[in-house]
Amino acid sequence: MRLEDLFHDTLKDIYFAERQILKALPKMAKAADDPKLKDGFMRHREETQGQVERLQQVFEIIGKRAQGKTCEAIQGLIEECDELLEEATEPGPVRDAGLIACGQAVEHYEMARYGALIAWGKALGNAEIVKLLEETLEQEKQADALLTQIAMPVNKLAKAA
Amino acid sequence: MRLEDLFHDTLKDIYFAERQILKALPKMAKAADDPKLKDGFMRHREETQGQVERLQQVFEIIGKRAQGKTCEAIQGLIEECDELLEEATEPGPVRDAGLIACGQAVEHYEMARYGALIAWGKALGNAEIVKLLEETLEQEKQADALLTQIAMPVNKLAKAA
Repeated sequence: MRLEDLFHDTLKDIYFAERQILKALPKMAKAADDPKLKDGFMRHREETQGQVERLQQVFEIIGKRAQGKTCEAIQGLIEECDELLEEATEPGPVRDAGLIACGQAVEHYEMARYGALIAWGKALGNAEIVKLLEETLEQEKQADALLTQIAMPVNKLAKAA
Repeated sequence: MRLEDLFHDTLKDIYFAERQILKALPKMAKAADDPKLKDGFMRHREETQGQVERLQQVFEIIGKRAQGKTCEAIQGLIEECDELLEEATEPGPVRDAGLIACGQAVEHYEMARYGALIAWGKALGNAEIVKLLEETLEQEKQADALLTQIAMPVNKLAKAA
């Protein structure tokens, strides 16, 4: 296996993951009670659409067809989110606190994956790819920071609930 | 569902996850070629043992039995690592680069989970719990930073391989 193959495999993994996240975010927005959280999830859905397109550009640059590969990690992360919604049946701050945690676990997975892809893109000397992936990584970091911010009042309400 | 229940559920999730990681790390160390990476995985295994004990203390503080709950996310993350080892059959820098990425994905999952638990521990006003979890979070961040450092020379070797 060459570094190029590892890069390609991981690209397929995150491409699959991003498309699962595209489907999960509207469900998370629907389940959210706090309007800022609802809005945050929906806006991140739009960003995710752009991230999928950026990945398609990266596939094009490396001369490969844009294709996903089952990513067990994102499936597990989304399953945990579904479980939360089964257990926290009532909308409100406690369910919101759980949704925020699910969202942040997903963001962290993406940060780890994009971080690795960027490091490999640099090692492979492809500045164009690195630039595209860094734009996405920045968005994931901001999405995570926004969730941390929304969590503060939500957690206080959850304690009082 | 109360915030206390969400905290307890997530504590069970990460307790399960840490014990899976305890089992996975020696396999990762065995598969690693770079001596620093091998050593890093083994030292993190020792730290993980301490993290499991800290979680047991947290269970005790909240008056619950230390008990895990199947965590699909960590199972998926470990499955991805197993897949890597099936695909990158030869020891060397490319497999090491993949192992580092797997390790960092695990660290990021833990950072997200401990981050949420700390925020909820603060909202619940339990300083003792917050202190224990913050010690672990700090170790996870350092483990991630160490992997980033090890990755630099490894990725260069992987490119040349």
